[in-house]
Amino acid sequence: MNVISDKMVYLDHAATTGVDPRVLDVMLPFWKERYGNPSSLYRLGRDAAKAVNGARETIASILAANPREIIFTSCGSESDNLALRGVLLARQAAGKGNHIITTPIEHHAVGHTASQLASKSGFELTVVPVDKYGLVDPQAVADAIRDDTALISIMYANNEVGSIQPIKKIGKIIAEINKKEEHPIYFHTDAVQAANWLELNVADLGIHLLTLSGHKIYGPKGVGILYVKEGTPIMPLIYGGDQEWKLRAGTENTAGIVGMGAAISQIRHSKVNTLEMLKLKDKLIKGVLTNVRGSKLNGPKKAEDQLPNIANFSFLGVEGESLVISLDQEGFAVSTGSACTSTALLPSHVLIAMGLIELDAHSSLRISLGKYTTIAEIDQFIKILPKVIEKLRKISGR
Amino acid sequence: MNVISDKMVYLDHAATTGVDPRVLDVMLPFWKERYGNPSSLYRLGRDAAKAVNGARETIASILAANPREIIFTSCGSESDNLALRGVLLARQAAGKGNHIITTPIEHHAVGHTASQLASKSGFELTVVPVDKYGLVDPQAVADAIRDDTALISIMYANNEVGSIQPIKKIGKIIAEINKKEEHPIYFHTDAVQAANWLELNVADLGIHLLTLSGHKIYGPKGVGILYVKEGTPIMPLIYGGDQEWKLRAGTENTAGIVGMGAAISQIRHSKVNTLEMLKLKDKLIKGVLTNVRGSKLNGPKKAEDQLPNIANFSFLGVEGESLVISLDQEGFAVSTGSACTSTALLPSHVLIAMGLIELDAHSSLRISLGKYTTIAEIDQFIKILPKVIEKLRKISGR
Repeated sequence: MNVISDKMVYLDHAATTGVDPRVLDVMLPFWKERYGNPSSLYRLGRDAAKAVNGARETIASILAANPREIIFTSCGSESDNLALRGVLLARQAAGKGNHIITTPIEHHAVGHTASQLASKSGFELTVVPVDKYGLVDPQAVADAIRDDTALISIMYANNEVGSIQPIKKIGKIIAEINKKEEHPIYFHTDAVQAANWLELNVADLGIHLLTLSGHKIYGPKGVGILYVKEGTPIMPLIYGGDQEWKLRAGTENTAGIVGMGAAISQIRHSKVNTLEMLKLKDKLIKGVLTNVRGSKLNGPKKAEDQLPNIANFSFLGVEGESLVISLDQEGFAVSTGSACTSTALLPSHVLIAMGLIELDAHSSLRISLGKYTTIAEIDQFIKILPKVIEKLRKISGR
Repeated sequence: MNVISDKMVYLDHAATTGVDPRVLDVMLPFWKERYGNPSSLYRLGRDAAKAVNGARETIASILAANPREIIFTSCGSESDNLALRGVLLARQAAGKGNHIITTPIEHHAVGHTASQLASKSGFELTVVPVDKYGLVDPQAVADAIRDDTALISIMYANNEVGSIQPIKKIGKIIAEINKKEEHPIYFHTDAVQAANWLELNVADLGIHLLTLSGHKIYGPKGVGILYVKEGTPIMPLIYGGDQEWKLRAGTENTAGIVGMGAAISQIRHSKVNTLEMLKLKDKLIKGVLTNVRGSKLNGPKKAEDQLPNIANFSFLGVEGESLVISLDQEGFAVSTGSACTSTALLPSHVLIAMGLIELDAHSSLRISLGKYTTIAEIDQFIKILPKVIEKLRKISGR
């Protein structure tokens, strides 16, 4: 499946996934043939608009939402920015709330946007801590809520350690408060990593805004969605034409949007799939912890608190970046954490927030499995990893 | 080339273009095979980063710019928003300028963004008028400049009437002022429609920021670029990861970016190409004006003031939308103006700014030719158009 090296074992599905062949098939006609601008009035244009709205309906039905509530964007980061900036600036303009609540383990698209709004646009930011497993306590969120809280943004599942946040519980707390308060608090979740594994029913979750990304669910890069519950006050990030209910200007990326619809349709949330994946991950974890001395697992210990496909380790005395590069030479694609910061050589903000010392955070490795991952690949990895680590330790003299 | 109808004659290239087969070929491997995240450290990731940077270098060389000055975005509208909002908010934060100059015929991605900045963020906006041909007078721009002017945004060529603005002359005026002033004025141009026909050498043009879009140059939808001259103060629109020189977060749309590079490479700016296109357009214009009574041409009269592929007409007593729909039934894809507003049923802001009365603006039709347009298609169009118009006039009783 990979032109770079036939033998490559790809264990970095949280960074990105290849496009599912069925998804690509659906996208293909939209470049050379069905190329109309969805805003055009003639058939070629209406055909494109129909395809865009078909994808919208598909996604809405999977989220148990209304098509009117689905906004196509260019990526998860844009969706996160639109959710935070859009709602907060709308609330600020209406004089209804100036306070944001988030966590220290959010994706930078949420974390940096929140900091920027706090430092430049006069918002106040409360960062609710996580425990050593990377989990948020719903009561701590409840305690952080103030009269002027406008938006709470907490990710559904973390991209580095896989911790699943108690979104439903937090959603209930917010719904209780919103019953009494005149100015509702809006609740956003970045579900980019969760989408392959967890239920996405927005009413059940009790959220107002939800971010998804195409390329993490075997769809194309360059497309994302933001679910925006009807009635949520929100301003655009990109002004111009009237596309996407006047909330996101720009000619629609028809191929990408159709691909997003197909990608979300091919996800199969089932106990069987989850158990299959957990079996692979258990084998991986046992293999690593047994065969590599000085290794430990980061993240939740209980299976129900963690995505079934992500495992994060620290290896005493090993520098994470060197480990990634050495494993690459052996044919394994893995990462130290979020791909978005993996060239920045900073210790993971997620692991630091979980209380890891900087040394452990610097020696971390994230393995994320995917739907094509096999037992044989896990076996190969477990066989090679101890050797690579011992070699690196020898070089660094530990 | 079109699955909707084999007989369709596509005359709406200013709305969008199909992807050039050579461009699609270059894009194809980046979905299923070369799917790495460009931020990842291993080979599959580095391969993707190399492809992104290869496209960046190609585009930089065509713009006579530095690769460091090319920012990939998701579309022309995003680029326009980033240029205006990014520069103006950076200038405002530094207390260096609060005034924007633009024209009434800009794309809404510029016009609406400028209005929004003026109404919500405390900027002052001067809209320099255009003449009846849709042309801006450089002296009028010079006269509008104030001590606190921070940004001037004037499109290179208009998308509805094809008028080419005197960007180079305006660039010179700005450069003269910037020699003397402590706080430079930044000059942005939306070159989305110009790219197929006009030189894009940014130093020659004297501009600091330039917008391009993939899908108007036979590349994919979902990708655009913003050229940002080194040293230009600018803030991001989308915060998060460190992608695009920390100016545009989000996993890179590798296939789209590679397609953008290939699309810009296949453009051939040559006198021969321009003359060929002018020949087609002249035939179209003569055919229409001769055969349709009560017809007139909107836009510049001199060939050098207008894109060679756009012609805009008004037809006395005919409603533009009805004409588009009737022509569609006859197999012709044309538009009333900008595709972005063509479902809004508002008269064109461009034609109104040129002084057309609302009735003429409502009866307008834009024909935009492309590289596959043939003389036979023009002949067919000229043959059908008068019949369709007479039929519509009969219905409306004129």
